[in-house]
Amino acid sequence: MLAGLSEIADVGRDRRGGYSRHLWQSADLELRSWFIERAERLDLQVETDRNGNLWAWWGQPGMDAVVTGSHLDSVPGGGAYDGPLGVVSSLDAIARLQASGFVPTRPCAVLMCAEEEGSRFGVACLGSRLLTGAIDADKSRALQDRDGVTLAEAARKVGLNPAHLGADPDALARVGLFIELHVEQGRGLIDLDQPVAVASSILAHGRWRLTVTGQGNHAGTTTMTGRRDPMVATAQAIVGVQTAARLLPGSRATIGRIEAIPGGTNVIASSVAAWLDARAETNEETRLLVASIAASTQQAAEQNGCFATLTEESWAGAVHFHPGLRERCAQALGQVPQLSTGAGHDAGVLAAHVPSAMLFVRNPTGISHAPEEFAEAADCVAGIDALVLLLRDLL
Amino acid sequence: MLAGLSEIADVGRDRRGGYSRHLWQSADLELRSWFIERAERLDLQVETDRNGNLWAWWGQPGMDAVVTGSHLDSVPGGGAYDGPLGVVSSLDAIARLQASGFVPTRPCAVLMCAEEEGSRFGVACLGSRLLTGAIDADKSRALQDRDGVTLAEAARKVGLNPAHLGADPDALARVGLFIELHVEQGRGLIDLDQPVAVASSILAHGRWRLTVTGQGNHAGTTTMTGRRDPMVATAQAIVGVQTAARLLPGSRATIGRIEAIPGGTNVIASSVAAWLDARAETNEETRLLVASIAASTQQAAEQNGCFATLTEESWAGAVHFHPGLRERCAQALGQVPQLSTGAGHDAGVLAAHVPSAMLFVRNPTGISHAPEEFAEAADCVAGIDALVLLLRDLL
Repeated sequence: MLAGLSEIADVGRDRRGGYSRHLWQSADLELRSWFIERAERLDLQVETDRNGNLWAWWGQPGMDAVVTGSHLDSVPGGGAYDGPLGVVSSLDAIARLQASGFVPTRPCAVLMCAEEEGSRFGVACLGSRLLTGAIDADKSRALQDRDGVTLAEAARKVGLNPAHLGADPDALARVGLFIELHVEQGRGLIDLDQPVAVASSILAHGRWRLTVTGQGNHAGTTTMTGRRDPMVATAQAIVGVQTAARLLPGSRATIGRIEAIPGGTNVIASSVAAWLDARAETNEETRLLVASIAASTQQAAEQNGCFATLTEESWAGAVHFHPGLRERCAQALGQVPQLSTGAGHDAGVLAAHVPSAMLFVRNPTGISHAPEEFAEAADCVAGIDALVLLLRDLL
Repeated sequence: MLAGLSEIADVGRDRRGGYSRHLWQSADLELRSWFIERAERLDLQVETDRNGNLWAWWGQPGMDAVVTGSHLDSVPGGGAYDGPLGVVSSLDAIARLQASGFVPTRPCAVLMCAEEEGSRFGVACLGSRLLTGAIDADKSRALQDRDGVTLAEAARKVGLNPAHLGADPDALARVGLFIELHVEQGRGLIDLDQPVAVASSILAHGRWRLTVTGQGNHAGTTTMTGRRDPMVATAQAIVGVQTAARLLPGSRATIGRIEAIPGGTNVIASSVAAWLDARAETNEETRLLVASIAASTQQAAEQNGCFATLTEESWAGAVHFHPGLRERCAQALGQVPQLSTGAGHDAGVLAAHVPSAMLFVRNPTGISHAPEEFAEAADCVAGIDALVLLLRDLL
């Protein structure tokens, strides 16, 4: 394992397996301190922007900068590589360039984006969306975590001014281009037998909150025909989610989070909340997929005397990475393959504003967002090698 | 509303609706203090037994006592009547007898049973099961709440000796008979247009923990065919629970509590836990119902490349209340109807050891274990009247 990853290997372990590192909670705060310390060891100058993203500048901050980085937060029970591999590789690449005596001709920074996974406030890539104004500042301030704490309250607690959350054109204007290295989250590089790839595109994707309301009642005294059970309706809806995604080639739809209210064993739930993650090749296909899921959910609710709503919590249109930058990467790295991905990334959000590119490092398990996520040390080094080549070329 | 219920109307309100009053947590401790104070106002002498049940004695404790009471804990988000109505009515009935100058010829006590709903430690009627030895003491000490706190630890924290948890033959030996008044949890008395009934029987019932294990993975990068998603398997299993119960007349099967692990929106769950509540007329029918659910769950798991287990967490065989005591109740009260119920009760647990009976008070909504649970003041008074008549007859 890369030394940088070893240093944080014990931060934010989840007793159920893997890591749970969520925005501004203890593990995330510890990782931020570690990032600052590690950047300062390379004489990088670290600043926190108004949205809680960290920028570590090599030399003077300035316009037209080459920015590289990723994130340190995780999904609940996530792996050790998703996010941290890109941050550690960026710092290692700069250390290698410094050691070789390389002097950049453009400003350069390592960016650590806040709340990429959306695990605390429900919106993925929250830090880069705030930075770029892709999410409304007022809407974002009102976002709540599972304990009802708003983003505004959480920001204030770590010393940020909630009124300053939102689009940060000055910070964004300095970014000339952005490169994010990331562990691959599928089997593309396994199948190609290659350690590193350049990203071509990201599926359109979004999150929707499904709420099914029925009638809470006693599980023992209420006859099967006298029920309006939202759990059964939600179960039918979840089966419908799988069916809908299977019917649309290349699409994915998932329910990974569910909450029964009030959640007693001998209580028919009064309502059930579930969160839908849906993705497809194009924006239109994704909208069609979700419309189909909404229709089957409505039917499931009606069959059980319940009422269902499906509310969009976030949306990210399909991304096709900058052709010119992709071409330049391909030339600098030789014949590396190009791969599309179903995973969202801060590079995808930034791509709407500045030329952006991604490097993927092979994951021999093909599994991500789970403890089995992995990258061989040799492949991690190949990723850093590629990043060094790109930075030499671009700086 | 009865004065006693008004006094506790603000204790343990759940922000999601209704009441959440769970064993030895703040609301339950407050209710216990209230019970002791209210009993002492009637010159009753209150003792806590080794399992945390409270006994309020009218006169000297002794053998062959007439014991009446119910419980004060609730399901999550439960109603105001399930449990407290029986405790308040018992205290009010004794107050009425005292005011009339009645002098009992047998010992008499009001019993408040601990953790009747099983909302904290998963086993319904835990206090009466411990008292009667219906649950193994070692097994009970190891029961855990949702935060991993064991019953032994929780008992120690409130000053009980965990080593003394379990069968309490001395306390049980004093009980000559037990009468529990309870709000009805179905529509029997609505249909009969009567305020009060005597219980005839309780369905067999139990709780099982269902665990479905799959492969945690990324919701965006994992193709629909490459998944082993335990949420889809569990959803199919829940649909199967409804189907199985509908096929067996009079039976009920419910999933009211579910937990996806790790529970991230962009994460295919690695496992899902769900709790099954199943009930039927006879023990054999209930076993058959659960076997049928186990089979369909296994099939759902296999279809999704998952692995499922179904583990019994509690069991209560069908109860037919003591014919002699029922007859005596019917004579004392005149022509009150007799009703069976699907709900478990401490009276059902005690019935295996001492003659036990139950009185039901009409619930005009027919809804229970939910905020809509209700009893009209006049019906509550009719319930107390009936209890006074019975106690006069029995004491």
